[in-house]
Amino acid sequence: MANTVYDVTTFNGSVSPHTDIGKVINEIIADIKANQTTQNTRPGAVIYIPPGHYDLLTRVVIDISFLTIKGSGHGFLSRAIHDDTADTSSWYEVQPGSSHIRVQHTDGTDEAFLVKRSGAPGTVGRLNGIVFQDFCIDGVASTKPYVEGNHKIGISVQSDNDSLRFEGMGFVYLTQAMVVQGADACSFTNNFVAECGTSISLTGASQVAKITNNYLISAWAGYSVFAENAEGVLISGNTILWACNITLRNANRCTISANKLLSNFPSMIALTEGSSENLISGNHFRRVYGDGTSTRYDDLYGLVHINGDDNAVTANHFSFSVPATAITPAGAAPTIVLVAGGARNYLATNHIKANLDVKVVLDPSSTDTKLLHSAAQSQLQAYTNDYKLVATP
Amino acid sequence: MANTVYDVTTFNGSVSPHTDIGKVINEIIADIKANQTTQNTRPGAVIYIPPGHYDLLTRVVIDISFLTIKGSGHGFLSRAIHDDTADTSSWYEVQPGSSHIRVQHTDGTDEAFLVKRSGAPGTVGRLNGIVFQDFCIDGVASTKPYVEGNHKIGISVQSDNDSLRFEGMGFVYLTQAMVVQGADACSFTNNFVAECGTSISLTGASQVAKITNNYLISAWAGYSVFAENAEGVLISGNTILWACNITLRNANRCTISANKLLSNFPSMIALTEGSSENLISGNHFRRVYGDGTSTRYDDLYGLVHINGDDNAVTANHFSFSVPATAITPAGAAPTIVLVAGGARNYLATNHIKANLDVKVVLDPSSTDTKLLHSAAQSQLQAYTNDYKLVATP
Amino acid sequence: MANTVYDVTTFNGSVSPHTDIGKVINEIIADIKANQTTQNTRPGAVIYIPPGHYDLLTRVVIDISFLTIKGSGHGFLSRAIHDDTADTSSWYEVQPGSSHIRVQHTDGTDEAFLVKRSGAPGTVGRLNGIVFQDFCIDGVASTKPYVEGNHKIGISVQSDNDSLRFEGMGFVYLTQAMVVQGADACSFTNNFVAECGTSISLTGASQVAKITNNYLISAWAGYSVFAENAEGVLISGNTILWACNITLRNANRCTISANKLLSNFPSMIALTEGSSENLISGNHFRRVYGDGTSTRYDDLYGLVHINGDDNAVTANHFSFSVPATAITPAGAAPTIVLVAGGARNYLATNHIKANLDVKVVLDPSSTDTKLLHSAAQSQLQAYTNDYKLVATP
Repeated sequence: MANTVYDVTTFNGSVSPHTDIGKVINEIIADIKANQTTQNTRPGAVIYIPPGHYDLLTRVVIDISFLTIKGSGHGFLSRAIHDDTADTSSWYEVQPGSSHIRVQHTDGTDEAFLVKRSGAPGTVGRLNGIVFQDFCIDGVASTKPYVEGNHKIGISVQSDNDSLRFEGMGFVYLTQAMVVQGADACSFTNNFVAECGTSISLTGASQVAKITNNYLISAWAGYSVFAENAEGVLISGNTILWACNITLRNANRCTISANKLLSNFPSMIALTEGSSENLISGNHFRRVYGDGTSTRYDDLYGLVHINGDDNAVTANHFSFSVPATAITPAGAAPTIVLVAGGARNYLATNHIKANLDVKVVLDPSSTDTKLLHSAAQSQLQAYTNDYKLVATP
Repeated sequence: MANTVYDVTTFNGSVSPHTDIGKVINEIIADIKANQTTQNTRPGAVIYIPPGHYDLLTRVVIDISFLTIKGSGHGFLSRAIHDDTADTSSWYEVQPGSSHIRVQHTDGTDEAFLVKRSGAPGTVGRLNGIVFQDFCIDGVASTKPYVEGNHKIGISVQSDNDSLRFEGMGFVYLTQAMVVQGADACSFTNNFVAECGTSISLTGASQVAKITNNYLISAWAGYSVFAENAEGVLISGNTILWACNITLRNANRCTISANKLLSNFPSMIALTEGSSENLISGNHFRRVYGDGTSTRYDDLYGLVHINGDDNAVTANHFSFSVPATAITPAGAAPTIVLVAGGARNYLATNHIKANLDVKVVLDPSSTDTKLLHSAAQSQLQAYTNDYKLVATP
Repeated sequence: MANTVYDVTTFNGSVSPHTDIGKVINEIIADIKANQTTQNTRPGAVIYIPPGHYDLLTRVVIDISFLTIKGSGHGFLSRAIHDDTADTSSWYEVQPGSSHIRVQHTDGTDEAFLVKRSGAPGTVGRLNGIVFQDFCIDGVASTKPYVEGNHKIGISVQSDNDSLRFEGMGFVYLTQAMVVQGADACSFTNNFVAECGTSISLTGASQVAKITNNYLISAWAGYSVFAENAEGVLISGNTILWACNITLRNANRCTISANKLLSNFPSMIALTEGSSENLISGNHFRRVYGDGTSTRYDDLYGLVHINGDDNAVTANHFSFSVPATAITPAGAAPTIVLVAGGARNYLATNHIKANLDVKVVLDPSSTDTKLLHSAAQSQLQAYTNDYKLVATP
């Protein structure tokens, strides 16, 4: 076997990987660096994590490009159902499995994996082509809604980076699953995030991140996807639930299409702080009432909340079913879409099904909104005259 | 190598995997269970199937969580073209390949893989995180349309389950490829199903299954996707053909978007038995005439058939090309969309191209249908006055 | 380990794989053929390429079905940024990595991988189920826009083929990344193509190719996706940039949906030579000005250019921002959509945001175009009276 292929269970580390897989992976990375010593001889390596339960006591620090860390399955098991069940003595398995890392730091850090090259800013230090694939990062113990919870972070990328891949991963009981600062062409696909505070956080300025084909199941105090100052994120083909909350802050030209979205709370997609020219198309929004309580947003905030210019909301379906007694403020007509501000927002051919009298609301600071076959005349609540309506007949 | 990593060709089984891979995998599972004996020490394992031809005489029964069974390719070769070719003596390969399992039971069962934990109902027995990846399950011999055909089933899941994954698999010449009962967050992605009766069947009540990025190529007597009592299935980014037939029975809030759909028959998507609040958006429907004959549906059934409330059909393209002589009943105007019943179904910005005079039909029991820029005035056949039309000009 | 599992670093080849991985893989293929000698005993094999830098001096010729060639990562690093940087002496890595093949032919050929079975036309020679997965093909040296550049081709398929898979691959500095002639059910998913001339080229007549979930980043002289005489291509969930250019020539019933598209040039999607009944839905088009200059198309060509019948353009967002001084011909109103010819093209609920006075243009040979809520009255430039307009209010 080539010396670029590692297995945590056969590497001759200073400790068993079951005792501290973090320390073992750090030692493997040190070994890779000792073997790959020139600019032109750094292809990286692959580290395999066979199925098993592994404790992580020491944070992994990845400061080389082209490292692939790979297991044999995301190994999800619901810790919440387990914790909520009085007697689990007859259960066969009681914790997640497959290639399963239990995050139990004793080193005072929060991240299971930190991707960062110190003292190497910008292009010089840019980290490329790192891959996380098919293993489980498990925070072990937490409580809903997981923010702040145990403060644990699955993977945090804090150096400039290009073409990173998160694929087939499982995340459970973490405050944050994946955080990437300054992402360029970062791909998140086929992951299973559940029972976490925030699923994906794109901090700093990012370029063309791609979030496709994932399950993102997070609770009501964090975000499904958070992106600030982002350009061109693609969010497509995902199933996002429990408290679907995609929040863009000053993020522009993003595409959110062909997703299945479900939440027990308002703010399923929020385009805030001037987020402009985004497209929300072909999504299914389902708002229900159930697990969890939160005062974070009231029902006037909108399932879709828009504060920016020239966003397009086309061909979506809204399905709203909440008991009247659960609406806040009490007695309010719940808002499906709130155009809180911005010019020329464009809504066309959206269908609304609701058990209550719901509204599409245009705030006074919104201008030149187009509302085309997206609401009945009676569903429009306009606090401005600066709009065009073609009512759904 | 860790003792959780198995290879069917190196495991010391009682029989060669080429003779009976089913028996070998069952013995591996028994070995895993012998090694993993407490609730907290059951991470499961991975079983690798190298490229090769393997007969399966004994049904595999999977009753542990976190098992990954993995090959190196779906290995599809068209058995139908082979069977239809008079002389294949000059062919290089005459059957599927890669990690190729030939289903040839001698044990009286139908399933190649049965996932079921006996005597463990509900949460107690819930099976988690099982993965089928990158191998081929081949029924070996059958005849079109494969239902009932050889009665063989590729994978059947019959216990409660969570976060199962079907990825990169190949299925050929089976009555049913994948059947999952009671699925929760079950992911089907990147599979290649061809020359089967039914591709994916979600029985019982399921939650948020995700069917993305697959080829589903099945014949005219089964289904591409069948789902009953399902909540929130996402069907996106698939190529579904030959006889595309997605049938939902009392299934709600599903999303069918961004798919390429092709069929030689009516009923490409049927929302039946009250299926409501589903979204069909951004799909390409192609209906042609060719391989296969069937009296299952006539041309009045609709390419899209709706019998439920508040379904939305937006931004799709319909392309219909069938010889007039092949229409049943003879002389009928073929139906593109039939709203057979239900309230407030919403159709907007759908384009129809057809070689014949085709119709969008509203049956008497349909109420308050909205038909917006989806048909010319002359294309509407309304047997009720309870609708709103904005005709395509 | 089964004799169908190869590793280029442990195979006893006549040369080191680091010296000429092409020669080694050809020798492995010869070995497979020597071991698999009858029609019924050809399951193929898997060839693993561990992380490392490998030179390819000899073209690989694949003439067997069911071969999987697999690495551990696409290993992308931007050669363009590297080449454009004056001093890279402080960089940690200066070339791509992971399972990294440097294409440096000494055999006079252009393709790194040629898939072709000689003397075996049609069904007899049809190649099935070949997989390229998770490695990097790097042209090493080139100059923008890479066409014609170094003339190197990553993978070229030149025999009839069925169900091939390109997955998780990286391509950089190639004139063409992937070329497939006569594709049937060919899947391109999760690839990372960057700094190439043309990303995907479907030549000859193809059936239902599927291009999903990729990054396709190519320059202004080639194509993102080129397809001629194609039936039913699905292009969904991709991020396509730099010079997004999807060109269909006499290609019909394709689906382009839920993509993020970005270009510095016109012609982001061109439906030419009678391409008909295609669907373009739920995409985000972003046109800017920046890296690269080209006279290939002027700003009257259209971001979307249509010359065929019954194409549907629904629910898209167009975002145009180009300095007036950069428009060609000078002073022209840039064209967002040009219907250059064809009947019954259907545009509905598209939103346009532009920094200039832009137009949707109907040429004289276009007939019966429907333009519904897709442009303001002032944005329509019609050189015919044969159209129907429902202007965006």
